[in-house]
Amino acid sequence: MQMTELIGKKRDGGKLNAAEIDYMIQGYTAGSIPDYQMSAMCMAILLRGMDEEETLNLTLSMVNSGDTLDLSAIKGLKADKHSTGGVGDKTSLVLCPMVAACGVKIAKMSGRGLGHTGGTIDKLESFPGFSTEVSDEQFFKNVNELGIAIIGQTAELVPADKKIYALRDVTATVPSIPLMASSIMSKKLAAGADVIVLDVKCGDGAFMKTEDEARVLAETMTKIGKGAGRKCAAVITDMDQPLGWAIGNALEVKEAISVLRGESGGDLLELCIALGSCMLTVGGFAPDNEAAAGMLREAIASGKALEKLADMIEGQGGSRCDVYDTSRLPAAPVVKELLAESDGYVSAIAAESVGLVSMQLGGGRVTKESSIDLSVGVVLKKKVGEFVKRGESLAQIHAASDEAAEKAAKTLMECFEFSAEPVVRPRFIKDIVM
Amino acid sequence: MQMTELIGKKRDGGKLNAAEIDYMIQGYTAGSIPDYQMSAMCMAILLRGMDEEETLNLTLSMVNSGDTLDLSAIKGLKADKHSTGGVGDKTSLVLCPMVAACGVKIAKMSGRGLGHTGGTIDKLESFPGFSTEVSDEQFFKNVNELGIAIIGQTAELVPADKKIYALRDVTATVPSIPLMASSIMSKKLAAGADVIVLDVKCGDGAFMKTEDEARVLAETMTKIGKGAGRKCAAVITDMDQPLGWAIGNALEVKEAISVLRGESGGDLLELCIALGSCMLTVGGFAPDNEAAAGMLREAIASGKALEKLADMIEGQGGSRCDVYDTSRLPAAPVVKELLAESDGYVSAIAAESVGLVSMQLGGGRVTKESSIDLSVGVVLKKKVGEFVKRGESLAQIHAASDEAAEKAAKTLMECFEFSAEPVVRPRFIKDIVM
Repeated sequence: MQMTELIGKKRDGGKLNAAEIDYMIQGYTAGSIPDYQMSAMCMAILLRGMDEEETLNLTLSMVNSGDTLDLSAIKGLKADKHSTGGVGDKTSLVLCPMVAACGVKIAKMSGRGLGHTGGTIDKLESFPGFSTEVSDEQFFKNVNELGIAIIGQTAELVPADKKIYALRDVTATVPSIPLMASSIMSKKLAAGADVIVLDVKCGDGAFMKTEDEARVLAETMTKIGKGAGRKCAAVITDMDQPLGWAIGNALEVKEAISVLRGESGGDLLELCIALGSCMLTVGGFAPDNEAAAGMLREAIASGKALEKLADMIEGQGGSRCDVYDTSRLPAAPVVKELLAESDGYVSAIAAESVGLVSMQLGGGRVTKESSIDLSVGVVLKKKVGEFVKRGESLAQIHAASDEAAEKAAKTLMECFEFSAEPVVRPRFIKDIVM
Repeated sequence: MQMTELIGKKRDGGKLNAAEIDYMIQGYTAGSIPDYQMSAMCMAILLRGMDEEETLNLTLSMVNSGDTLDLSAIKGLKADKHSTGGVGDKTSLVLCPMVAACGVKIAKMSGRGLGHTGGTIDKLESFPGFSTEVSDEQFFKNVNELGIAIIGQTAELVPADKKIYALRDVTATVPSIPLMASSIMSKKLAAGADVIVLDVKCGDGAFMKTEDEARVLAETMTKIGKGAGRKCAAVITDMDQPLGWAIGNALEVKEAISVLRGESGGDLLELCIALGSCMLTVGGFAPDNEAAAGMLREAIASGKALEKLADMIEGQGGSRCDVYDTSRLPAAPVVKELLAESDGYVSAIAAESVGLVSMQLGGGRVTKESSIDLSVGVVLKKKVGEFVKRGESLAQIHAASDEAAEKAAKTLMECFEFSAEPVVRPRFIKDIVM
């Protein structure tokens, strides 16, 4: 087999078989196929596409390029969730305890963040003493006994994806449905869960600009999941402003806890109910999404969801008291209100830009080596569609110093747009693909 | 400017401007743009195309990547010719003396061959003493005084093409009209001629399989030539069997001389008349192609064309006697006739395969370092459409030993196909693009 022939086949719109795809993926991972051939192939795939079978074979070959997690030591169905990414996305912190309270096992590996805020692992480190570096034995024990554990990535999952993604990033070959779907799904499959639920964002602030594009990605990924023998569903959500209210690590943890307490709702709760319903339904824990939503609301009302979060924090070295008294979590020394300069309806909040404000405050990493200030960030007080009076607070800036807060205020104000006329927010949950 | 952005622009079907193309070509030549970005760009260009302006700018930028020849020391219009390549292609050896006899200045750089036979430079070295390594001063002097010189490549013309072509070869990005056209035309423009005539082959034995594809390439190249201020035309010819009769270096020289003597005709003469007519007409030496063809036939009939070849050979260190007495040229010790095994019409002669027979006999290079046996090769006795009786000669094999001839005979026989019914050969000259 020759890589040049395979590139030529895809270039001419042909279909690659499983052996050809495996030759390419294992060869590239091992270094016997050079970058310049793989980048030409990625461009050919981007412009010519891949059918369902090719995309599944690509994903499976990527899974086989490295270690995979064997979760068979954990009894019952294990669930995992993935989001295509967004600003203020603390979904896992709410969703995982909610579904764990309904009997689904959460054995989740998460990553650290690069960019506007930390990842789930960074956010969880807001709990003093909490450890995400846990032995496999302890991990399995916690999930079996408590129903939930979220740890950092230990094994070398999908080295092919690391290498291919880095190449795609510098060769303008990122926006390809089969390449994106296989990149995400290979990591989810390697992480071993039986049930995989996907949050696919669309809109200005997301990678997928339109609902149609997001649906194609969602359908492609659920087909891969099912093709690999997993239970899989996806929720398509609008991403025109940050998710929820808080952007910044400890601030997001506090918001997650207030949702689990039943004190806060909005788009974050709506999203967690939608994703959780899919998990319970496709996992066979509920007959349909409506019944599942009822179970999830009851888990909050009964306090069981919050208890699961406390169980997890305690199980991984933290104190369960921190869950019930969030004043014990990191807090910034300076809190500055951003006041509206005139009356009007909030018509837009540029999500990416708000994320950058949080990063500039110290809440996100500029490089992999940067350290994060867990306490800083932004808490929105008004979201799109709301009316604000002159002098009312639009947002709180949590900063390490007055100077940092002052600087952030200027940039944050530019993230808001206003309208004299009432603004109708687009529907948040666009569709569910099951 | 970022290469990733430029790749993205072309990926999405956008048009690259002159500055962007120049950034990419000069950066890649200098090594600041890596192979993996250039190969993704080549695939995007292959699948998305380039318009006339982009293709011209690409070509001009490639010309600027290295040295260019300044032929202004030579008086009058200088002409050059390029062929997209074929087996038995000794066109330059006939065409150049013919047009030189009509007043066009031939200041030509040629290359050595890799593959089935040598290049024009190798073939010319069949003349003992003939040198293709000539100083610029001598080169200009010969062209001014004799009207003709063909030398080896001295200056570093179009380093961008060398690098890009090597990359395209291993990334399945060769068959792209803008990339092929810019590759060929950049070298022709850098070589400095005022008049450029192109021989674009089509058919089974050629890179362009159909007449339509060949026409697109021919039109693209002539537009580049004109866009760069040169006089340019192209002839589209059928390539379903070797050109002329001989395949092999000295054998091809002998055939060329017999055409210049008026003793041989066929497709080779027809092609040289077509290409030469274009040169004379676009160069303003003749009012139209018909008049030009008359001048060229007269140059043969008067012996002036043959004299020009003798002038050139003598001017570059050879003996003009060798032109008039070809028994002085290299000859193989063994000549074996390939006899027909039954009656029939020749329906096909696989050009590429006949070329390989010549290479196996020692007439072509396997690697750049191989030496060539100038004496060996194949001389066809029957071409497509001709009737052959059992026992009649199909071809002569010129070999260094009986064993080599015996071995070649088996392979050569497989190059022929026969039919019981008469065979109509497709029209040889398909079209002329001016």
